[in-house]
Amino acid sequence: MLRISFERAAGPGAPPLYEQLYRAVAAQIRAGELAAGERMPGKRSLAAELGLSVNTVDTAYQLLAAEGWLAARPRSGFFVCPYEGPLAPPRLPCGAAPAQQPAAAWRYDLSTGGVDTGLFPFRTWGRIQKELLYGRPELLAHGHPQGDGDLRQAIAEYLRAYRGVDCDPGQVVVGAGVEYLLGLVGRLAAGRTAALEDPGYGRPGRILENSGLFCLPVPVDGQGLDPGALAASGADLVYVTPSHQFPTGAVMPAGRRAALLRWAGAAPGRLILEDDYDSEFRFGLRPLPSLQGMAGRDGPVVYLSTFSRSLAPSIRIAYMVLPTGLLGPFRSAFGSYSSTVSRFEQQTLRLFLQRGHYVRHLARARGQYKARMLALTRALEAAFGPGALEFYGQHTGLHLLLRFPGGPPEAEMVRAARAAGVRLAGLTDYCRAPGRTPLPDHTVVLGYGALCPGDVAPLAQVLKKAW
Amino acid sequence: MLRISFERAAGPGAPPLYEQLYRAVAAQIRAGELAAGERMPGKRSLAAELGLSVNTVDTAYQLLAAEGWLAARPRSGFFVCPYEGPLAPPRLPCGAAPAQQPAAAWRYDLSTGGVDTGLFPFRTWGRIQKELLYGRPELLAHGHPQGDGDLRQAIAEYLRAYRGVDCDPGQVVVGAGVEYLLGLVGRLAAGRTAALEDPGYGRPGRILENSGLFCLPVPVDGQGLDPGALAASGADLVYVTPSHQFPTGAVMPAGRRAALLRWAGAAPGRLILEDDYDSEFRFGLRPLPSLQGMAGRDGPVVYLSTFSRSLAPSIRIAYMVLPTGLLGPFRSAFGSYSSTVSRFEQQTLRLFLQRGHYVRHLARARGQYKARMLALTRALEAAFGPGALEFYGQHTGLHLLLRFPGGPPEAEMVRAARAAGVRLAGLTDYCRAPGRTPLPDHTVVLGYGALCPGDVAPLAQVLKKAW
Repeated sequence: MLRISFERAAGPGAPPLYEQLYRAVAAQIRAGELAAGERMPGKRSLAAELGLSVNTVDTAYQLLAAEGWLAARPRSGFFVCPYEGPLAPPRLPCGAAPAQQPAAAWRYDLSTGGVDTGLFPFRTWGRIQKELLYGRPELLAHGHPQGDGDLRQAIAEYLRAYRGVDCDPGQVVVGAGVEYLLGLVGRLAAGRTAALEDPGYGRPGRILENSGLFCLPVPVDGQGLDPGALAASGADLVYVTPSHQFPTGAVMPAGRRAALLRWAGAAPGRLILEDDYDSEFRFGLRPLPSLQGMAGRDGPVVYLSTFSRSLAPSIRIAYMVLPTGLLGPFRSAFGSYSSTVSRFEQQTLRLFLQRGHYVRHLARARGQYKARMLALTRALEAAFGPGALEFYGQHTGLHLLLRFPGGPPEAEMVRAARAAGVRLAGLTDYCRAPGRTPLPDHTVVLGYGALCPGDVAPLAQVLKKAW
Repeated sequence: MLRISFERAAGPGAPPLYEQLYRAVAAQIRAGELAAGERMPGKRSLAAELGLSVNTVDTAYQLLAAEGWLAARPRSGFFVCPYEGPLAPPRLPCGAAPAQQPAAAWRYDLSTGGVDTGLFPFRTWGRIQKELLYGRPELLAHGHPQGDGDLRQAIAEYLRAYRGVDCDPGQVVVGAGVEYLLGLVGRLAAGRTAALEDPGYGRPGRILENSGLFCLPVPVDGQGLDPGALAASGADLVYVTPSHQFPTGAVMPAGRRAALLRWAGAAPGRLILEDDYDSEFRFGLRPLPSLQGMAGRDGPVVYLSTFSRSLAPSIRIAYMVLPTGLLGPFRSAFGSYSSTVSRFEQQTLRLFLQRGHYVRHLARARGQYKARMLALTRALEAAFGPGALEFYGQHTGLHLLLRFPGGPPEAEMVRAARAAGVRLAGLTDYCRAPGRTPLPDHTVVLGYGALCPGDVAPLAQVLKKAW
C-alpha cells in the first residue's frame, strides 16, 4: 500500500488539516512519489495512521479528486491520476519589461495634456451621483452596447446645438476614451492606409498602427492639413483636427473643408476621422461648426470627441458619431461588446447635460482658461518687451504656440526651459517626418490648462532668463 | 458692388441677427451667388442698406472670416474666398444599418449573462464613493495607464489569496471589461492562430478575429479542452476556461493543466489566455487554483477576470495579469493609452477590496446563488420525477447543464421552452463547428443568475409541461 508522508502544522495561521493533507498528497503526486494508477489508502486506515478524523481525510480526497489528482472509482476507492509536470517555466521571447519612469518634478508644467481639475463641478456631479446610486437600482443591469439611449440622445442634442453635428442618437457610440473608440474604428479599417497630420498628435497614429493600418504623414500649413498632399499620398483614410489643428492651432477654412469632403467623395470607402478636441474652449464668438455637420449624417466623416478634457481626465467618457453607412459594419463587428462606461457615470453625465450644468460649466471654464491665456501672453510680452514674441493658435484652448524670432534655436529654447524647470515641447517635437513640413522656427508649444494663475508672472521671468 | 440678399427672421427662437446675416452670406457663397475674389460691401453701407447696426455686420464678417468664407485684407475690406462645394454626399459602400432588436418579453430568463443585481452592496459602495468624491480631488487627474497602483496591489493580493495567482502589481492591467483587455492582447498577437473551446463562449472568438487573429475550434470533453487536439490544430495561442468550462461546466484536472503548460512550453511564443470567469462562485470547498499560478509569473499564461459579474454588469472593471515577458511588448504598444476606467470607480473598488467588503459580499452572494441552484434542481427533479433529469457543472455559478434523456431532442426542448416564455439555449448553440465535438444529447444550458427565487417552482412546472 502507498505510504503518505504527512507532517501536521499547528498554531494560528496554519491551514485547516484537510488543506494540509490535500497539499501533501498533491506535492507527492507532483514529485512523482505517488505513481499513477496506484490505489490510495482507505480513508479510515489513513485517518487512523495519521491521527486525523475520517471526515478530514474524506474532505482532502474529495478536493484532490475535484482537481484531478485522484480518480474516485465506485466501490473501490481512490486512485492516483497520471501526472506529467510542466517543463521548466517557458519564457516568452520578449524583451525585459521597462521600468515605469518616475514623473520628473517640474516647477512649471506646460505640457499639452493638462487641464485645471479645480474647475470640476464636484458638488453638482456628486449630488447627481448620489441621487442615482440610491434611486436607480436598475442601472446595475447591462446597458446598450453603444451606451445608454438617453445619454446618446442628450449628446446628439448637445452636438446639434453647439457643434453643428447632424446625427441621430443611433449613430452615437459612447466609450471609455477617444483612444478606445479610435481603436474600434481602426479595426474596421484594418489594412488601409491612413494619413495623419504632420506635425500632429502622436497617439492616434500609434492607435491606428496598433489596429492594423499603415500610417503616413501629410503636411499641415497655416490652414491645417493640405488636401493636395492628401490626394497625392494614396491614403484612403485621414485623421484630422480641423477646428484647432494640433499643435499649430490652425483653423481649417470652409473652402478647404469642402476640398477634404470632395477628396473623400472621389473614391468609394474613403473616410475622414474628425477629432474635435478642445472645441468647447473656443474663446471667440462661438466654436466653428464641425466637418461632420458639413458632410451630413450620410457623409464620410466619423466625428470624435471626449468629456475627459472638459470635465476631468480621470472621467473616461468619450463618444463618436458614425456615418449611417458605417453602422452596419460597426454593429456586426462590435454589436456584442458591452459598453466600456459604467452606467452610473453615463447617467450622471446625462443628467448633467440635460439639466444645463454642462453648458454652464463650459462657460465658466472657458472664461477661466481665456483669462489664463491672456495673462500668460501679457506676462510674456511684458517680460520680453513689445514685439519680441509672436503667438499663434490662441483662439481655442488649451495651448498656443510661442515664436521668439530673436531667440535661440528651438532645440536650445526647449533645453534651456527644461533646465530651468519648465516642462514644454518644441513644435518640431510633434513632427512625424522631421524636415518635410516647413514650420516656423524658434517656436515652442505652451499648454496652459494646468497652469496656476499665480505662476504666470514668475514663469515669464524664468523663461526670459533662460532664453 | 455685390448685392447681399437678407431676410430678417424675428420672434422668439430666431437666431441673433449677426448669426442670420452670417448664414445668409455663407449660403450665397455656397450657392455660387457671390463669386470668389469679389469685394464685400463695406460694413457701414451694408448696415444702412439692411437696417442693421454696424456692430452686427462686423460680427458677422468676423465670423465669416474666421471660418474661411471671407478674407480680410487690411485697409481694403473683406473679399469672398474661393469655395468649391463638396459633391453630393458620398455614401460609404456598406450595408444598411440593422435596426436594434427589441428585447423579447420572456416570462423566465435563463440566459447565461444574467446576475442578481439585488445582491449589489449599494450602501457600502455608495458610502465609499461619496467619501472619495468629496475627499480626494486629486483623483480627477490622469492616472496610471494600467490602472491605479494601489488598486492593482489590492487585486494582486486578492488573487494571490483566493485564486493562487502569482504576480506582482506591475503585471496587472485594469480595463473596462474583459472584452477590452482581450482586444489588447489580441492586437499583440495579431496574425497568429488561436484555438477556442468547442463548444464555448462566442464573444472571445469574435474579439480575437476582430483583432486580426485566425480562430479555429478545438473540442472539449468531460475534462475541458483536449490538449492532443490542441497540439494537432497548429494554433499557437489558446483561449480556455479551465475552472469551469463554458458551457459544459467541466473542470480541467491537474494533469491536463500540466499538459496545457507543456504544450505552451514546447514552442517559443505560445500563449494561453485563461478566462477565470465565475470562479468566485464555486460552491464546493474552495475555488480551484488558477492555471496562471501553476505556470508562475514568468509562465506563458495571461489571466483574465472581471468584477462586472461579481458586483454588477454595469460596473465596467475587469483586469488581466500579464506574464513578465509580455510586459515589454504591452507597454511599448499600449503604454501611452489612458486607462479606460474612471479613477473614482477604481478607488471605490480598491477600498471595497481592502476593507474586506468584497470577500464578505462574495460569501453572501455565493450562499444566495447556491441556494438558488439547489432550489432549481430540486424543483425540476420534483416536477419531472426522480432520475428523469441529469445535471452537470453545478458546482460553480451561475449556470448548469440539464439533460433530459427521456425528453424530446435538444432543438425541440429549446423551441418548446421558448414558446412557453422561457429564454434558454441548447448545448449545441455554443458549438463553433457543429457536429465535430461529441456532446450529450437532450441537453440545455440553464443560467440562474437572474432567476427570482419565487419563480423557481412555476418555472419547473412550465418546463415539465413544455417537454
